[in-house]
Amino acid sequence: MSVQPRKAYIKVVIKLTAKAMTQIPEQIKKIALVGGTHGNELTGITLIRKFQQNPNLVARNSFKTLMLLGNPKAIEAVTRFQDFDLNRSFGFESLESTADETIYEKGRAKEIYEIFKSENIDAIFDFHSTTAEVGLSIILVNECPFNLHCAAYLSQMIPDLRVCSFFEEGQPSSFLNSLSPNGLAIEVGPIAQGVLDYSLFETTEQLINEILNFVDRWNSGITIPLEPVTVYKKVMPVHFPTHLNELAAFIHPNVKNFLPIQAGDPLFVTFDGQVITLTETQDSEQYYPYLVNEAAYYASNLAFYLMKKTEVFL
Amino acid sequence: MSVQPRKAYIKVVIKLTAKAMTQIPEQIKKIALVGGTHGNELTGITLIRKFQQNPNLVARNSFKTLMLLGNPKAIEAVTRFQDFDLNRSFGFESLESTADETIYEKGRAKEIYEIFKSENIDAIFDFHSTTAEVGLSIILVNECPFNLHCAAYLSQMIPDLRVCSFFEEGQPSSFLNSLSPNGLAIEVGPIAQGVLDYSLFETTEQLINEILNFVDRWNSGITIPLEPVTVYKKVMPVHFPTHLNELAAFIHPNVKNFLPIQAGDPLFVTFDGQVITLTETQDSEQYYPYLVNEAAYYASNLAFYLMKKTEVFL
Repeated sequence: MSVQPRKAYIKVVIKLTAKAMTQIPEQIKKIALVGGTHGNELTGITLIRKFQQNPNLVARNSFKTLMLLGNPKAIEAVTRFQDFDLNRSFGFESLESTADETIYEKGRAKEIYEIFKSENIDAIFDFHSTTAEVGLSIILVNECPFNLHCAAYLSQMIPDLRVCSFFEEGQPSSFLNSLSPNGLAIEVGPIAQGVLDYSLFETTEQLINEILNFVDRWNSGITIPLEPVTVYKKVMPVHFPTHLNELAAFIHPNVKNFLPIQAGDPLFVTFDGQVITLTETQDSEQYYPYLVNEAAYYASNLAFYLMKKTEVFL
Repeated sequence: MSVQPRKAYIKVVIKLTAKAMTQIPEQIKKIALVGGTHGNELTGITLIRKFQQNPNLVARNSFKTLMLLGNPKAIEAVTRFQDFDLNRSFGFESLESTADETIYEKGRAKEIYEIFKSENIDAIFDFHSTTAEVGLSIILVNECPFNLHCAAYLSQMIPDLRVCSFFEEGQPSSFLNSLSPNGLAIEVGPIAQGVLDYSLFETTEQLINEILNFVDRWNSGITIPLEPVTVYKKVMPVHFPTHLNELAAFIHPNVKNFLPIQAGDPLFVTFDGQVITLTETQDSEQYYPYLVNEAAYYASNLAFYLMKKTEVFL
C-alpha cells in the first residue's frame, strides 16, 4: 500500500467558472443532486423523484439543493443512453464543440452545463448503480480537499463504503460531476439494469443523507477528523480477451471487487477453458479489481478496472 | 400442498404436426437447442455458440441435435427483442396471422416454425436467464409424460433444481418451445442482462448435459424412477402498485423466489413507506413467488408470479 501526501489541488480546473481553483471552497451554497444520467439505473432515478416529491428529505440549513434527472430520453426508454453515453460528454472539447448537434446527449450535456452555471452550483453529486458487486462506493474525479474530506467523513460514518478515484493528472474527466471541482459520483451494486431493490435503495438513501450531513458540517466549519482515508486509485482498465472481435472469455470467478490480486493470479477463463493470468505488473504490489462485470462495459470489452489501495492524508 | 393425478396429456396440441398427441412419444429422434430467444440473455447465447463450435459436447447416440440462435437481430443489439417479444410470438394466432408483416419477431417466429417442421424436431429446449434469484429452474408449458419424466429425472440428478409449470388448461402457450409438446425452457439466475457469469454458465451447462442424458435414457427405454416430482404451478401474476401509470413501490424484501408466503404477508413497500400485504387468497394455502424482480417484466409492471407447490405423480 502506497502512502500519498496531500494532492496539489490547485491543478483542478473548475469548468463552471472557467478558472483554476486556488483555494479550498469556504462555503457550498448550492448543490446539485443528479439521478438518471444513465436512464436504466433506476435507483438514482427513483431517489431523485422521491426527493422532488419530498424536498424536506434533502433540505439543510446551510445550502440549497437542486434536483435533476440527467437523461430524460434515456429514462423514458429505460436505456443507458440514446445516442452516446451522457456521462462521457462533459469534457471540455465536447462542451465546446458544435460538431455533434445531432447527438442528443451532447446537447443535453450543454443544457446541464448551462443550468448549473446559471444556478451557481458549488458541488455536484451524481447517483449511479452497477451490475458489479461493489456494495456502496463513491468515485472521485479529483482529489481536492472538499472531496477528500467528504470521503473521509463518509468512510467514518459508513465503514463498508469504498472510496475510489479515477483522477489522472492532466486527464480531465468527462463525467457529469466533473463540471464542478466539488462533488462525486456514487456507484452502488450489484443491481441489474432496469430493476429496483428495496435494501439497496435504502442504504443508498442513507449514503446520500450522510453526504448532505457532510456538506452541512463543512459549511459550519466543524472539523473533520484528520485520519487518513483509504482510496482505491485507478491504475488501468482490463479488457476481455476477444477472438475475431467477439468476446472469448469469462471473468475468472476468483476476480471479485476489492479482493486483491497480484501477478500470477487468474483474470479470465476462455470459452475453451484456458486460464489467463495477470502478468503485466510494474511492481510486486497488489491490485484491487473494481466494477467487475458491469453490463454497460461489455460494449467496449471492458471487464473491470485494476485499482491500487492508497492511504491519503488530509 | 395439493396432490395431482396424472395429467390428461392428450389435450396437448402439437403445433408442429397440427394434430393432438394421443400417445407418449416412443422415440425422440431430433431435438432443438435454442439460445438467444431473448438477445440480452448471454448465458444461453454463449452456450449455443460453444456447442456449435464443439458439437461433440451435445452429441448423443440416440438422437440428432439442431442448434439455433433464436433472435439474431436482438442478439446483435444486446436487447431482449427488436419489435416484440419473440418468446410471446408462438401462439397459433400469431403463427397464422399475416397482419404483422412489419414486426421482425413475428416473421422470425414463422421462420423458426418452418425450420423445426422441415427438420422434424421432436423436442425443443430453450435457454433463458433472468435477473431474478431463481437458481436453476425449468419451466414446463404442458405436463405431458415426456416433460414430467424429464423433470423428475432432472430433480433427482440436480437436487437444487426447481420445476415450474406455466401450463393452463385451454390456454395454449406462446413460448418458443410450445411448438413441440416435448421440451421445456430453462430459466437460470440471478444474472443481469448483457452479462456472463462463469459459475452460472458452468451449472447451466451441467443442467443441459443432464437434459441430453435424459433424452438418451428415454430413447433407450431405461425406466425413470416413479417418484412424484415437485412442481411449482403458476397461480397468478402479481403486478406492481402504480400511481398515474408510474411505478409506485418496491417488492418487499421478504418476498423471495420459492420462499412461501400466505395471506397477511407483505408483498410491496410503496415509495412513501406503506406495506402492502397479500390479501386475495382463495384458501389458506401457501404461495411461492417466482421470477421476483425480473427486469424485463417492469415494462408491464409485473413484479413476480405466485405459484403453488404440488406433487405430481408420474
